[in-house]
Amino acid sequence: MSVHFKKLALIGIGLIGSSIALAARRQGLVEVISIATRRQETLDEARELGLGDIYTLDAAEAVRGADLVILCAPVGAYAALAAAIGPHMEPGAILSDVGSVKEHVVRVVGPHVPQGVSFIPGHPIAGTEHSGPSAGFAELFAGRWCVLTPTQGVPQADTDKLVSFWQAMGSMVECMDAAHHDMVLAITSHIPHLVAYNIVGTVADLEAATQSEVIKFSASGFRDFTRIAASDPVMWRDVFLTNKDAVLEMLGRFSEDLSVLQRAVRNGDGAALETMFTRTRAIRRSIIDAGQETAAPDFGRPHETPPTPDVPFVREHGGGDDA
Amino acid sequence: MSVHFKKLALIGIGLIGSSIALAARRQGLVEVISIATRRQETLDEARELGLGDIYTLDAAEAVRGADLVILCAPVGAYAALAAAIGPHMEPGAILSDVGSVKEHVVRVVGPHVPQGVSFIPGHPIAGTEHSGPSAGFAELFAGRWCVLTPTQGVPQADTDKLVSFWQAMGSMVECMDAAHHDMVLAITSHIPHLVAYNIVGTVADLEAATQSEVIKFSASGFRDFTRIAASDPVMWRDVFLTNKDAVLEMLGRFSEDLSVLQRAVRNGDGAALETMFTRTRAIRRSIIDAGQETAAPDFGRPHETPPTPDVPFVREHGGGDDA
Repeated sequence: MSVHFKKLALIGIGLIGSSIALAARRQGLVEVISIATRRQETLDEARELGLGDIYTLDAAEAVRGADLVILCAPVGAYAALAAAIGPHMEPGAILSDVGSVKEHVVRVVGPHVPQGVSFIPGHPIAGTEHSGPSAGFAELFAGRWCVLTPTQGVPQADTDKLVSFWQAMGSMVECMDAAHHDMVLAITSHIPHLVAYNIVGTVADLEAATQSEVIKFSASGFRDFTRIAASDPVMWRDVFLTNKDAVLEMLGRFSEDLSVLQRAVRNGDGAALETMFTRTRAIRRSIIDAGQETAAPDFGRPHETPPTPDVPFVREHGGGDDA
Repeated sequence: MSVHFKKLALIGIGLIGSSIALAARRQGLVEVISIATRRQETLDEARELGLGDIYTLDAAEAVRGADLVILCAPVGAYAALAAAIGPHMEPGAILSDVGSVKEHVVRVVGPHVPQGVSFIPGHPIAGTEHSGPSAGFAELFAGRWCVLTPTQGVPQADTDKLVSFWQAMGSMVECMDAAHHDMVLAITSHIPHLVAYNIVGTVADLEAATQSEVIKFSASGFRDFTRIAASDPVMWRDVFLTNKDAVLEMLGRFSEDLSVLQRAVRNGDGAALETMFTRTRAIRRSIIDAGQETAAPDFGRPHETPPTPDVPFVREHGGGDDA
């Protein structure tokens, strides 16, 4: 299966777009990369980083002659972008994207896809809390899943080619229905982000004195939430605007479960709490076994070395050090 | 300030107890370490790891002649332990602990502390999701805060000595009121853990087919929660049983805030969502600036390298690799 494309057009060049540019180049998957952005500043940054070959503020120009077009902009911009590029796409080209929701993308982009273009929405399940063209790196997709949701009538050969493209960048690929994707991602991704944003927001509302203490003592759990809550705000706004039904459904389950836990706390029901806290360990074990997480304590976060023993008060007293 | 102790008694030897044993040894802070556990199996494990000098199933025996006693067992065991060791503690000794709640500890341990013993509850804000004697390491406390909540009538010299002990193991130390500690920790630690346990629990209730997909695609946010929700269940049960008021108060705020977010999702209020998602970034920045977190993307989690470009389908097509 050939995974070589003559011209890859990346519409948007944030964390994901820039990582695709770097990975596709490194793996020799494309001849030419054209990059389109909305803002001049982002385009200049991409050019300075040497991410592509052609740089333009005009998405329609970027897709001309491209045999692979990937939308890497916030999902909220897709409808306008699709309307702009649709008439300029080449027959035989593949159109894909990297958005975190898929049904909405099919709904708003689909009508603009011309005859002869294969529309295969995608979602690489990879990322960090950093954003922008300089946040990308070629290893981002390695060992991570990429979900593709091919639309009706797309030739199997085109789907296979896009699958190979992602595999060549290190991804594992799974094809599924767009609605199913949105439901699974609501619980694995959207609700965790909503909850993280929420708890960090609760802290942001505390009076200043308490807030500074929360920051000081954040290593006790809170800081993990702040990483997730530092993700790109515009991207996440669009996720919640466009996957409303699945998010509200899963949020309902979450809230019901939280009420049960809250009642156990209020009633001092130790047995219920311990049962609840025990069964969750198995799920982490499964994730580590599935290769989706490191088994190192604390995510392998670096730990400082304590001061060496030859500080005055220790020298003063000597003995007991068996190190 | 001398930080040298003749005999340190550790009552309980899990992640925190074993880390104290290793750090205190390495820094030369103690001559003899006696270790008491409830279970023979844990005691044998501690002995095999060489964590101490004296090993016993009898806490009262462990504290005999000790000038520093630290309770490192689950908080739920404190009342019985305090009753057992109280009559055997030496005048002039310091009694401390490492529990995640402090008012409750003062309440249940305080009455058993004999005249002449300085009771200074403590809480090292450090840990990983792993537990047991083999989980400990000497660097655990380096650069982390330790809160002490000295009780009334304790000589300042004793407090200073315990402060120096923790500092020598690498901690930064802050003294505060027990009730204030419990309120701050409710939001930085207890609520994040409750929420993490809850969301992992919601997943545990999904039908098996969906659950396996959640595990597969967990890298999208969910896996961070599973780390927190893999913490010691008995320890966390006791936290929620003993810091009920502060937890319920902060959980109330969290739930109110979540309702506001939920309404914004339901109403499609993009402006409100974006504002909410933007202000949370500053809090993470403060935590990184305060030295309580790594600035590396994704906590510095290891990223795999994608396959090298010389796989067949790439060789077949050549060109375009500027790496």
